[in-house]
Parts: sequence; C-alpha cells; structure tokens
Amino acid sequence: MQDYIFEIQLKVRDYELDLQGVVNNAVYQSYLEHARHEYLLSTGFSFAELTQQGIILMVSRIEMDFKNPLVSRDEFVVKIRTERQGVKMIFFQDIYRLEDNVLCLKAKVDAIAKVNNKLSRGEIFDTILQ
Amino acid sequence: MQDYIFEIQLKVRDYELDLQGVVNNAVYQSYLEHARHEYLLSTGFSFAELTQQGIILMVSRIEMDFKNPLVSRDEFVVKIRTERQGVKMIFFQDIYRLEDNVLCLKAKVDAIAKVNNKLSRGEIFDTILQ
Amino acid sequence: MQDYIFEIQLKVRDYELDLQGVVNNAVYQSYLEHARHEYLLSTGFSFAELTQQGIILMVSRIEMDFKNPLVSRDEFVVKIRTERQGVKMIFFQDIYRLEDNVLCLKAKVDAIAKVNNKLSRGEIFDTILQ
Amino acid sequence: MQDYIFEIQLKVRDYELDLQGVVNNAVYQSYLEHARHEYLLSTGFSFAELTQQGIILMVSRIEMDFKNPLVSRDEFVVKIRTERQGVKMIFFQDIYRLEDNVLCLKAKVDAIAKVNNKLSRGEIFDTILQ
Repeated sequence: MQDYIFEIQLKVRDYELDLQGVVNNAVYQSYLEHARHEYLLSTGFSFAELTQQGIILMVSRIEMDFKNPLVSRDEFVVKIRTERQGVKMIFFQDIYRLEDNVLCLKAKVDAIAKVNNKLSRGEIFDTILQ
Repeated sequence: MQDYIFEIQLKVRDYELDLQGVVNNAVYQSYLEHARHEYLLSTGFSFAELTQQGIILMVSRIEMDFKNPLVSRDEFVVKIRTERQGVKMIFFQDIYRLEDNVLCLKAKVDAIAKVNNKLSRGEIFDTILQ
Repeated sequence: MQDYIFEIQLKVRDYELDLQGVVNNAVYQSYLEHARHEYLLSTGFSFAELTQQGIILMVSRIEMDFKNPLVSRDEFVVKIRTERQGVKMIFFQDIYRLEDNVLCLKAKVDAIAKVNNKLSRGEIFDTILQ
Repeated sequence: MQDYIFEIQLKVRDYELDLQGVVNNAVYQSYLEHARHEYLLSTGFSFAELTQQGIILMVSRIEMDFKNPLVSRDEFVVKIRTERQGVKMIFFQDIYRLEDNVLCLKAKVDAIAKVNNKLSRGEIFDTILQ
C-alpha cells in the first residue's frame, strides 16, 4: 500500500455540528473536498483555475465509512493517497483525530475529468502525479 | 427489488451551487439526510425527538454515485427504499431530475442506532418499518 | 408602508440546526437569498443567467434581527417587499413561522448590481420592478 | 475606539464559493461565528459546554457590510473588538484579506445570553471580559 502523500490539519468549527452535537455527516465530504483541492495546489494546480480553463474535475463516486464522530474543539488531519485507474484518479482519504490519532473517517473518492465537455482519459491526473 | 416507499420533491437553491455552477457534491448528502428524516416523520418518528430520548440514529457508511449534476432551477425528487440487515437499516436513495426523469444520484446509506450509548440490534428500525 | 410583494414557504431541514437545536444564524441568510432569487425568477429573471451575462447582483449590506428561533419541523414563510434607493434595491425580508404567524426574523438587505465590472446605476432593478 | 482584542487567520475553502466564484454571503456569518467561539475559548469558555450548562449565547442582531469579496485561495484574518451594552455584548468584527490587508467585511454582532430560558443581564459577558 502506497503511503500518504499529502495531509492537512483542520479544526472543527461549531457551525459544522448538528443537533446531535457532532460534525454533520455531509461536512466530512466538504473536509475531503478541501483537502483534495489543497493537495492539487501543492502540485501546482488550482481547481478554480482549471475550471475556468474548461477542465472540469468531478467526483463520480464516493464511499465513506464513519468510524468516530468529531465534536466541538477537535483538531484533525485529513490524509490522502492516490491511485490512477483508467480514466479515474482515486483518492483514498482518511481523517484522524489529532489528540489520540483515532480514525474518524475512511473514504474512497473517484474523480474524473471533463475537458471541453468530453470525458478525458485522465491525462490531467498523470500530469498532476508527476 | 422492493419498490420505492417514500419520495420527496425539492428544488435546487442557488446557494447550493459551487463555482462550477452545479450543486456541490456534499449538498446531495444533505438532500439525502433531509429525505430520510421526512420519511421517518411519515412513519411517526422525529429524528430530533429520538435524539432527545437518547436514541441516536447514525450513518455508518454511505456510497454515492454521481450520475448527472443538478443546476440552478432544477426540481428533483429523492426516492427511498429500505432494507433491514442485521443491526442496520439500509436506505437506497435515488435522486431524479423532475423535468426529464434523468437519474442524478444513486446512493446506499447504512444507518445504525445507539441507545444509551450502546449499539442497538436495530429494534427501532423494526418499529419504524411496521 | 408598501405591502409584501412576494412570499415563499419553506420547511426547516434538520441539517440546518446547530448544537443548540435551532436553525443556525447563518442559515437564515441562505433562506433570504433563496427567497430573493425565487422572487427574481417570478419577475422573469434568473440570478444564474444574469451572472453568465456579466450582470452581477451583489449584497452590499445586510441587517438581521433574530426574533424567535426556528426548530426542527417548523414550516415558515419568507415575505419580501422592495424599495429602490439610488443605485440600490432594498429588500425588506421577514420570516414568519407558519403555525402561529410568529415573527422569527426581520431583515433589510441592500443589493447593488455590477455590469461588466462597473457599479450600475440600478437600471436592472428598475426593469425587474416593472 | 478600543483596539482589536482577538484575531484568527483562516483560508477560503472552495466549497464556500458560489456560482459567482466568490465566497457566498452567508459563509461570512459562519466565519464570524467561528471567530467569536475561538475568542470565547481563548477566555476559557466553550460555547458547546456553556450550551450544555443551560447558558445559551445567542445573536440578537447582526449588521454586515460587504466591502470586497473573498475568492479561491484567499487567506484572511477575522479581527474582534467588544463592548458591553446593557444586557448585550457587542462584537465588532472585521475581515481583512491577508495578502494586501484590504477590508472585506465589516460587521457588528449583538449577543445576548439566556440562562435557564431567561434573558440574563449579561453577567456571563462580564465574566468573559475579565
């Protein structure tokens, strides 16, 4: 198994909590997106600029296992490893609570790219991975 | 395959769109949650009241296939069918654009229940399904 | 005082609640935006299409008085009246709980328009108001 | 005028952008809330714990002037100064873009506290300010 190639530390914000007092499930998906976009930036690519150039990066499928809920004041890290599969770039993204390194979320995110409205064969992903 | 047992019609709100001009991926998860809670209400149970009673309904896993993006002004329907599996209640949730009945999202959501902080064997789900 | 010229009925979604069990303050701002965009549509204009045409409608100032919190299951109505003031269009937006007509939020929203990146004198608003 | 007494640095996340490619107006309100809660923590108080103890801090009124939009990749700082006024604690909160120190948002937030469901005279705020 490939090692993690990128990570970002974040902190729970209270407006992300729901009436159960835990981070709402949908918010994790936002955390994952933000981590991927920061990873992109670290490779020299901006999601916003790619979009303006007509290179549309899209999530085609996502799987998330919710292991342990994050709560108010928790700090956490989103770790990423990647795999190229055909037209796809697969992001394996895991969220750990910083305090005790407990796994909170395990996710697999399939991304595809459209260029000028056509599904690309994933050349953009090869470029990013170099 | 069981038929859909519940559906709810909603409309895209512009604040749900991201810089690509489509509904942001994480927002679909919110749509799905809202549909499940409305389904619960239709069976006589309130998510908020269950939470207050110490019955914590949680999503343990989610799978989503993003088929076609929703955009500004789109109206759509979230359809639900359910299955009991061990301690879990499985929600199969599909989102269709109303205008042309195109499938936009296909999801499988595994829910579990904790009662007084212990994993329940899912009796609450049997009660709901009756 | 001018009468309300538009209203839209909505229902609280549980993911909009925060750890206090009430609709999070920021969510009201989203309700208000959605109501304004639906009002726009009712006059024949789409916020998304205007944006694509380079007509950027923006909020320059907002005032909100939080009177009574909305909670799970609440249905409510957002009512709008408008005034033209110089380059601005002022939206007075009030939110009432449907069940008992209690005032939940009172807001004043100042909107301006930029056309091709220049502040417009508000002609677009005059067109809308006709 | 009192000096700023607290500040927090944050970075725009792409999911906070709307179809105009700028941070959605409602998101600024979330930024402000997060900054206030972090300020609270810096004085030794947790919003979540106060809520559990029946001390409900609430926003009664908010005024926001949107000066310059934040966009993808922007880093910014939320600065806070406070004033006690009767039962209220007033937060003056300004957001500056870090790169060039441009003022992006100017806000005034009135907070009140309810203790056991009764409006407090603001003793909790005096305690925080000590």
